[in-house]
Amino acid sequence: MKRLFIVGVGPGGHEHRTPAADQALDAASELVGYGLYLELLGTRIAGKQCHRLPLGDEIARARVALGRAGSGRSVALVSSGDPGIYAMATLVFELMDREPRPEWADVEVEVIPGVSALQATAALVGAPIAHDFCTISLSDLLTPWETIEARVRGAGIGDFVVAFFNPVSRRRTWQLERARDVLLEYRPNTTAVILGRNVSRPQQKVEVIELGQLTNDRVDMLTLVIVGNRETRRVGRWVYTPRGYARRLEQGAGEGLAS
Amino acid sequence: MKRLFIVGVGPGGHEHRTPAADQALDAASELVGYGLYLELLGTRIAGKQCHRLPLGDEIARARVALGRAGSGRSVALVSSGDPGIYAMATLVFELMDREPRPEWADVEVEVIPGVSALQATAALVGAPIAHDFCTISLSDLLTPWETIEARVRGAGIGDFVVAFFNPVSRRRTWQLERARDVLLEYRPNTTAVILGRNVSRPQQKVEVIELGQLTNDRVDMLTLVIVGNRETRRVGRWVYTPRGYARRLEQGAGEGLAS
Repeated sequence: MKRLFIVGVGPGGHEHRTPAADQALDAASELVGYGLYLELLGTRIAGKQCHRLPLGDEIARARVALGRAGSGRSVALVSSGDPGIYAMATLVFELMDREPRPEWADVEVEVIPGVSALQATAALVGAPIAHDFCTISLSDLLTPWETIEARVRGAGIGDFVVAFFNPVSRRRTWQLERARDVLLEYRPNTTAVILGRNVSRPQQKVEVIELGQLTNDRVDMLTLVIVGNRETRRVGRWVYTPRGYARRLEQGAGEGLAS
Repeated sequence: MKRLFIVGVGPGGHEHRTPAADQALDAASELVGYGLYLELLGTRIAGKQCHRLPLGDEIARARVALGRAGSGRSVALVSSGDPGIYAMATLVFELMDREPRPEWADVEVEVIPGVSALQATAALVGAPIAHDFCTISLSDLLTPWETIEARVRGAGIGDFVVAFFNPVSRRRTWQLERARDVLLEYRPNTTAVILGRNVSRPQQKVEVIELGQLTNDRVDMLTLVIVGNRETRRVGRWVYTPRGYARRLEQGAGEGLAS
């Protein structure tokens, strides 16, 4: 059976991995993934053939997974978080599109969504992405910086809550602070910023700071950065972005919030 | 024990409901939610006291949940999808912030993330939200239309993939087409658009059309609309938004995609 499951196993802890992901892992005879993500699966994958590939080599992982499925195996390509958000799924479809091979044509592909690190981080601090939000990768390896900066500006103009992925790297040292400065043209210094690192994993660390305090040295490659919008508020240890409820309360609470 | 779990039970099918959500449901003695969402939980919630409140009345649900927890119960406030994305969590924190009551102060609150309808819809068609994306609610009950249109324009300028929530209602009849026209200033007529209705539920329906074909009558209150960006492509029955892999392939595939 030529099957390829592209499986999101969630942010780390098995308590966030769905039954659909487990079913796909069980149905696969072979697994392809970054070593650490496979370790996180523990005994679930005992006895399966594992193709462990290095972290940077996503294209190779997608190619191996398609190749094994194309040769008649049931394969699970393992992605952390949600495989459709800055992750493995798109690489599989891009290979199918740009380098089609006859043996891939009848592979049955299924994408299994998962809880992303963004959602797990947001949940730990409250409800920061509860209204219109956007995600922006600051990696300028594959996207010109001008395009990225235009996105940050679009997010500023639109007052979106912004989640920055890939905020820094060894060579990416000024982009996050530049993005901060663009956002500061549109929202105050005191805007709440959430820094989530290794969320749902053993070294989990989450802190809430202000946008004016967001410097490169507070963040590393594994940090997800969520910047509130102009309405984002704090209550006790929580951060939330309202849907407009205060105005609604004044209008009469009985009407509810649904559209 | 004063506990309030704000639980995301996923888009519908139990296969997308996490063990963390199940644990919270099991730990609660009382449940608060919209009737249909509670039905979807089946035997999981047998024997629990259920407070079923109507769909429109989100504020009342948050208030009942906080009230029951404040009076010493272990309560699960049930949200479909992810409770932090256009859902219940933010209302709880807003009540705590704007109408604080002494009996709420020591309620232990925990937010349990879940797979959102956006993720489930995206997974069914491939990887449309694989690069920078944003979410925009077209409900202008709580947000002035000018603000919403500025967001749509920001999304156009930034070339974000856009997910529209609450695209239409009985009284919301022109906003989706206006948003489409704004996006058409920045991306072509042929841009892929995904319409997902009741995804992961019995009446599930998903179709892929072009932006130029997006009219009000193709969509209802339960439809999630995902509009691709300028790079979004189709391959067979799939839709995906590349991360820039083609360019990278030319540069040398061995470098991989990670930042």
